[in-house]
Formats: sequence, C-alpha cells, structure tokens
Amino acid sequence: MINKLVEKIKKTEAPIVVGLDPMLAYVPEHVQQKAFAQYGETLEGAAEAIWQFNKEIVDHVCDLVPAVKPQIAMYEQFGVPGLAAFQKTVEYCKSKDLVVIGDIKRGDIGSTSAAYAIGHLGKVRVGSREYAPFDEDFATVNPYLGSDGVNPFIKVCQEEKKGIFVLVKTSNPSSGEFQDRRIENRPLYEHVGEMVAEWGEQCMGDSYSYVGAVVGATYPEIGKVMRKVMPKAYILVPGYGAQGGQGKDLAHFFNEDGLGAIVNSSRGIIAAYKQDAYAQFGPEHFGEASRAAVEAMKADIQSALNQK
Amino acid sequence: MINKLVEKIKKTEAPIVVGLDPMLAYVPEHVQQKAFAQYGETLEGAAEAIWQFNKEIVDHVCDLVPAVKPQIAMYEQFGVPGLAAFQKTVEYCKSKDLVVIGDIKRGDIGSTSAAYAIGHLGKVRVGSREYAPFDEDFATVNPYLGSDGVNPFIKVCQEEKKGIFVLVKTSNPSSGEFQDRRIENRPLYEHVGEMVAEWGEQCMGDSYSYVGAVVGATYPEIGKVMRKVMPKAYILVPGYGAQGGQGKDLAHFFNEDGLGAIVNSSRGIIAAYKQDAYAQFGPEHFGEASRAAVEAMKADIQSALNQK
Repeated sequence: MINKLVEKIKKTEAPIVVGLDPMLAYVPEHVQQKAFAQYGETLEGAAEAIWQFNKEIVDHVCDLVPAVKPQIAMYEQFGVPGLAAFQKTVEYCKSKDLVVIGDIKRGDIGSTSAAYAIGHLGKVRVGSREYAPFDEDFATVNPYLGSDGVNPFIKVCQEEKKGIFVLVKTSNPSSGEFQDRRIENRPLYEHVGEMVAEWGEQCMGDSYSYVGAVVGATYPEIGKVMRKVMPKAYILVPGYGAQGGQGKDLAHFFNEDGLGAIVNSSRGIIAAYKQDAYAQFGPEHFGEASRAAVEAMKADIQSALNQK
Repeated sequence: MINKLVEKIKKTEAPIVVGLDPMLAYVPEHVQQKAFAQYGETLEGAAEAIWQFNKEIVDHVCDLVPAVKPQIAMYEQFGVPGLAAFQKTVEYCKSKDLVVIGDIKRGDIGSTSAAYAIGHLGKVRVGSREYAPFDEDFATVNPYLGSDGVNPFIKVCQEEKKGIFVLVKTSNPSSGEFQDRRIENRPLYEHVGEMVAEWGEQCMGDSYSYVGAVVGATYPEIGKVMRKVMPKAYILVPGYGAQGGQGKDLAHFFNEDGLGAIVNSSRGIIAAYKQDAYAQFGPEHFGEASRAAVEAMKADIQSALNQK
C-alpha cells in the first residue's frame, strides 16, 4: 500500500491528504436540514449529515489528491451511527481509488493491540468466515506502550500489505511536555523516531517502509532532523493551514527525490467555504470551495519544493 | 463518579474491576452456536455472542464487585456491530449499578480529543437535542500528546462528574522502551505521574481526584513510588493474574486507608471456566466459574492488604 501511495503522489503531483474531520459546525445548514428531515435531530441524522458532507467533498477532490484521512473521533462522537458513517466514508473513498489513512491513534498491548489492528487493517474470523470490518489502508498508532503495542500492527501490515504512521512529534503546542524531554541528550521523539526506523525495516515497500511517522508541520526544524533519523519512513505531516504550518515550512520533511512526506489539511479544505478567500462559492457550493482550496495548497507546496 | 467508585469499593470490600475483554475464543461453544443460529457467522453473530457472554458474567458477579472495564478493542474488531455490543454492555452494566470504566486509551488534541471525551463521557449536540453516545463513567486516556490531549477530557469530567485514568506505567514487558527512559534522573512515567497529580487538582472528589492513573501490577516497586507521587489519584492496576501480577505485589499500590487502587483482572475472571482450578463448572456454567474466580481474587487481595 505504501507503493500505491507513492505512485499516486507522483501521478497527482500532490503530496496532500485531505483530512475528513467533519465537525457538525462545518456541515452547511442545507445539508444538515436535509439529513434531519429524513432522520430527525438524532445521532442517525448527524451521521447522515457528515456522510453526505464527506461524499460531496470527496467527489470534488478525488482526482486531485492521492489520499484522505478520516479522523475517527469526529465520527465516534456520534456513537454507533457515527461509526457506521466512518465505515461508509472509508468504503466510498476506496471506491474512488483514494488511499485511506484511518486517523485512529490507537495504542494498546498484545492481543488488544492485535484486535485494533485486525479491526482497522486486517480481517477478523467469525466461525468459518472472515470479515474486514473497517478496512482502512493505513492507521495512525500511538507509541507510548512500546513494541508490544506496535508489533501486532506490523504483523497485520505484513500480511495485508498495509501500513501505519506512528506518532513521533505531534503538531500541538503542548506536544513538548513529554515528547521533547531529553533522554541521553536527545529528545524523546528522536528515540521514538529511531524505533520507527527499526520497526520499518521489517516491512519495506519498493523505496519506503510500510511504517511511517507523524511529525507536525508546526515544527519544521524537527522535520529536518527526523527526515534523517528515519530516511525510509514516509512522514505524515499534520498542522498545515489552520494550525499555522505553511508551504515554506514543509520542504524539510521531504527527501531529495521530492518524496517522503504527505501533508494533511483538514479544516482548511473541508470548511474552505467558510473562509473569506473562498466565500464566493457560498455554502451551496462547498465542494467546489474545497476543490479550490486543494488547488491552492498544491501550488503552495509545489512552490516550496521547487525552491528547495 | 470517583466518590461512587470509592463508596462501592468500601461496600463490596473488593477493590476489583472485572475486565470485559471478550475474545471470541473465550465464549463457550454453546453461546457462539446460539448466536450464529440467529445471525449467521457474521459480525452481528459475533457481536451477539460476546454480548450474551458478557451478560451472563455480569449477572453472576455484579453483586461482588464495584466496577467493570470493557476493553473497546475487543468490540471494535467486530466493526459497527461490535461497537453496538460495547454500547449495550455499558448500558447493561450501568443498569446493574456497576461503575463502568471504558478502556479506550484514546489520546488526541484539541477538538479531536474533545470529540472523544464527548462521545465516551459527555453529551453531543445534534440540532436542538443532546445525546450521550457511549456514556461510560470513566475512560482511560493516553498522555503522549500532553495537556492538549488531556484537558478536553478534564473539562467533560468537571461537567459530568466523571473521571479518567491516564496511562502512566503500563503492565507490558516493553512498556519500558519509552516509559522508563530517564529524564533529569527520573523515568518518564514519573514525570507523567506528576502531571496526573497536577491535572487531578482541577477536579477533586471528596477524598480522591476524578483523574486517576494506570500503573501495571507487574511493576510493584514502581507502584510504591507512584503511590507517593500521586497521593490523590486512584490507581487502576492491570496485569493481575494472567499477566503475572499477584496479590502480594499489590499492597504497595494502596494507601494506608486501604483505598486508592482498583485491580483489574480480565481473562482470569471471564475465561475462568477454561482454567484447571474452575474446570468443574464446565463451559455450560461459565458464569459461576467467573463468580468463583472473583471470590478467590477478592480473598487474595484482602489477605495482601491485611498483611500490609
């Protein structure tokens, strides 16, 4: 799957992933009202609203980008109906040939971690049958519990040719509270990055590993260091746009071949119609506003890579 | 909710939480077959099997213990139907007046962390209505992302009088890879524990905080230190039984008042009928085997506390 991701990035010339994190407040009134008319102001109604919202955006951007990243928390907050909308979104994006990164940040140990890995990337056995419950292509994983938490994911990745992105340095202001603490003269995130490189050796694609890393756009200098610590890891870079990261900050995350990183934007794309820059589209044409925002982001990143 | 937990621990004299982590392999054949007869060998069939399994165990132990801890991964692996079984389990346990600790180990930032907190402990707004989607009493939380990840949970805990247990030192063998690394002469988990104490000051119950911590039974010496670092935090102690922890290892996790810790056992209780010690019950009477295992665990812990 890492090979497919790299191929699609080359083909679209867009190292961009669209974060499908649909807060209800982002969903235009007319989409909400239509869903509520059908299901009432219920969890089912909210789930229908975010699903229809996602579908419209995916239809407008699927030819421009290689991948999407649905954030499962935004679905989980609407309970079981919300999680059904998550599953439907994953399925629909895959039918559009998009690579799907499940932003699930799961992390547990042993058989519990295996259950998450199976549920999201693999197949679960029921009697004599097998099912792929959520079936994303990649998942994000929290490293705090160490190899016991990550290895069950790697096992499933090897079987299914899928991948993970391990949290190394997150984009948020307080990420430093633990991640930046110095251990033997290097910050914790660097130690985690070394483990990512080690884990990654167990499952290499053609040029990059199935085991990638998350490093926030808001810390470009760290991107520079981590690029060297994990040369074969694809770096998933959150924090572009709404969180403050800009194209010029991103060049460090890429290798000389112009590959090695994929930049996420969520709010900046899916709620583009709410920004002054795209207000002319109006809420009725929010999908077109998202498409315009993707095109602007692509140009911003390409210009930063060209100046590298 | 921490007050209710403490009260119930005093009343039952059992600082014990039953981990409802139903692997399908633990569910007796006759329960599986009945579920498959109704729903086929499907995700719905698996979900029905684990739900019926849980119900039988809960019916047999609910008067003996204060709390249960369903591990969401074991449900999530069966997709949306599995998560519906999780929700049903939470609801049923609450109807039996058990305190429910959702072992979800979520951790993200800002609005995403808020979405998890709302989905599991709080209420989500849909139009003019509000719903409590999963509605556990406590949730486990991963600290790797720092305060940005934990504060949204604390906000919901303050509003709803609910609680969290933050992962400090987990019970698994590789937990030391990152958690034990030394920062300014103390291991990372100790720094996390200090933050737990600090976060906990923002939401105190009568004698303990709504913010507790997870420290594995497999590391009793660490329990001793962490008990002092976080005097007001309830410690959720996994790793008893199947993972190797024994009653005598546990005394350190408790305060002088005999409170301050609650010990989890999952496999050792819910799959007791598979152990030689309880084989006489047979798979048909797996609920009674679980009850006997709870009684043995209660005696083991009480004797350790008496020797303290």
